[in-house]
Amino acid sequence: MAAEYDPTNIFGKILRGEIPSHKLFENDDVLAIMDVMPQSKGHCLVLPKAPSRNLLDASDAALAKLLPAAARLARAAKAAFDADGVFVCQFNEAPAGQTVFHLHVHVIPRYEGVDLVRHGAGMADNAVLAEQAEAIRAQLS
Amino acid sequence: MAAEYDPTNIFGKILRGEIPSHKLFENDDVLAIMDVMPQSKGHCLVLPKAPSRNLLDASDAALAKLLPAAARLARAAKAAFDADGVFVCQFNEAPAGQTVFHLHVHVIPRYEGVDLVRHGAGMADNAVLAEQAEAIRAQLS
Repeated sequence: MAAEYDPTNIFGKILRGEIPSHKLFENDDVLAIMDVMPQSKGHCLVLPKAPSRNLLDASDAALAKLLPAAARLARAAKAAFDADGVFVCQFNEAPAGQTVFHLHVHVIPRYEGVDLVRHGAGMADNAVLAEQAEAIRAQLS
Repeated sequence: MAAEYDPTNIFGKILRGEIPSHKLFENDDVLAIMDVMPQSKGHCLVLPKAPSRNLLDASDAALAKLLPAAARLARAAKAAFDADGVFVCQFNEAPAGQTVFHLHVHVIPRYEGVDLVRHGAGMADNAVLAEQAEAIRAQLS
């Protein structure tokens, strides 16, 4: 049997405004934020507002909103940092690498000759994230 | 300036029926097939029928159809092979790892304690892919 959604996860708390985040954009369906453990410069996330653990228990309606939002972020982050490409990924259940159990899509700018930092290797400096968020928002507007 | 879509790519040929594939499902918007260079048992792909290189030049309408289809595949592949999780990924431009320039989403079952094969490391046996496709289709219907 599939595990159930637990609303006490960190993205649930961010969506409810209980803990802060570096917001990039928000609409009725999704919230886009900076990843606080970035794998590259400009690593950001799209979260659906509807609760689900991951792709396996999400509704088609929620899933339909995620890639258009991820593409918007990918274009903005690529432009903001002159990235050479963008890696998009999403993990379902712990054996696949999922660490926070609210569905989220990673949008990770790639730079020629620069390897990715390991997933979850360390927290970024808050001021650096704020600056990067500002640069991405400038490309969104 | 962004590169343009080149319809001679291998997924364009598959979508036009010019070369064969192991089909999993198809509708007006997407085609789902086995990846011939699998990174794990049951590695499959979702392609939009609309032409685009990747996320960066795709329409929101095309993007909206991809994750619901990927989720359908993920659930079926997980059930077919009793996988422990599913990794979903998508590469935009060569520096991010893209090798075929028609937008596609990878759906890669994960198994506890089993590392992924390197992306594009080798071709799978055709009979094995046919058998895996049959197992996934059985879970879709």
